[in-house]
Amino acid sequence: MRIGMIGTGTVGRTLATAWARAGHAVVLGSRRHADALARTELSAALAAGVGVTDPASAAADADVVVNATPGTASVSALLAVGAAALEGKVLLDVGVGFDEEGGLSHPRESLGEEIQRTFPGTRVVKTLVTVDRELMIAPGSLEGPSTVFLSGQDPDAKHTVAGLLADLGWPKDSLLDLGGIATARGQEHYALLFMGIAGAIGSYGFGIRVVPPAGA
Amino acid sequence: MRIGMIGTGTVGRTLATAWARAGHAVVLGSRRHADALARTELSAALAAGVGVTDPASAAADADVVVNATPGTASVSALLAVGAAALEGKVLLDVGVGFDEEGGLSHPRESLGEEIQRTFPGTRVVKTLVTVDRELMIAPGSLEGPSTVFLSGQDPDAKHTVAGLLADLGWPKDSLLDLGGIATARGQEHYALLFMGIAGAIGSYGFGIRVVPPAGA
Repeated sequence: MRIGMIGTGTVGRTLATAWARAGHAVVLGSRRHADALARTELSAALAAGVGVTDPASAAADADVVVNATPGTASVSALLAVGAAALEGKVLLDVGVGFDEEGGLSHPRESLGEEIQRTFPGTRVVKTLVTVDRELMIAPGSLEGPSTVFLSGQDPDAKHTVAGLLADLGWPKDSLLDLGGIATARGQEHYALLFMGIAGAIGSYGFGIRVVPPAGA
Repeated sequence: MRIGMIGTGTVGRTLATAWARAGHAVVLGSRRHADALARTELSAALAAGVGVTDPASAAADADVVVNATPGTASVSALLAVGAAALEGKVLLDVGVGFDEEGGLSHPRESLGEEIQRTFPGTRVVKTLVTVDRELMIAPGSLEGPSTVFLSGQDPDAKHTVAGLLADLGWPKDSLLDLGGIATARGQEHYALLFMGIAGAIGSYGFGIRVVPPAGA
């Protein structure tokens, strides 16, 4: 699968490298793609076979576009890519935005919903926003199984994303489809409990598991 | 321990009954305490030995006051009880408020923080807000252990609340102290993910377990 990564921070580079190692054709979209210093920052990803180009080209040539930009900058970054390049595509959205006081940038809705509303012809799937970057690509690093969530309007798009999660090592029974893109709100708002738990246990490398009723 | 319950809805009645069965002296504070119809609604709790009086008396005579009112009405209900009756006491807060569209009534902070700010002489502990009413008193009903959270400024108050959780059946190692009352925000905002999960699995009777890194 051809994956275009928008956002070249640690999350974007980590996911790009992991998917390249799983055999996908991954291209990072960077506004500084011709800049030597930027290429140095990206060297680990480049060594894993990830390509680098400008964001619009990365999206235009992709089957799946990934939003790994900071949540406060995501909509403007995607508008710069352009609706045409995103039309009809699966957009895997891992963004979450915080304001200057550490509160959510979208306290009354979610970034996932805003992206879906801004790009109605794009099939947005929110996932991986409830786990730290390192756990995203190493779900087996915990003492037991944990849960990862999906939110989006399009079942086929969620099926595609489920395959990409499997490529990162997430077992099929660890995935929970929450429903439409409005349920992205729950995933994003969990960030506040995530930070509380991280502070309490002294690690970001934890997951949560949904524990169902006995006998369910 | 003398427990004064503010809020006589299903959550308040359920907790009052469970703590009475565990041997505590529990009194429900109801504005309609002398009303025959209200007493009929409360009959199961009364049969378990729970008393009924007016809210101010229930708080004044208690060691621990419990807020089980709807989150949008909690501050006014507690103001009606009065700061004097709450002064120095442990206030176990299980409230969470929703607006008319199902969003959080405190999207930029938490009810727990608002209560603590309104009653600075009261020791507020937020807990149990991440689980359904039935699970509150039956944590063993799940297919495995789950986690319940505590947030509050006062370690002694959290110790008291931890004891009351143990009386409901929560094992000591299922409790996670998140820190100060500001961490109540995470517990309350989780309500949105809770609703998404409930919709996905078709049950409110689930928990989440924090899954730490292997070997931690």
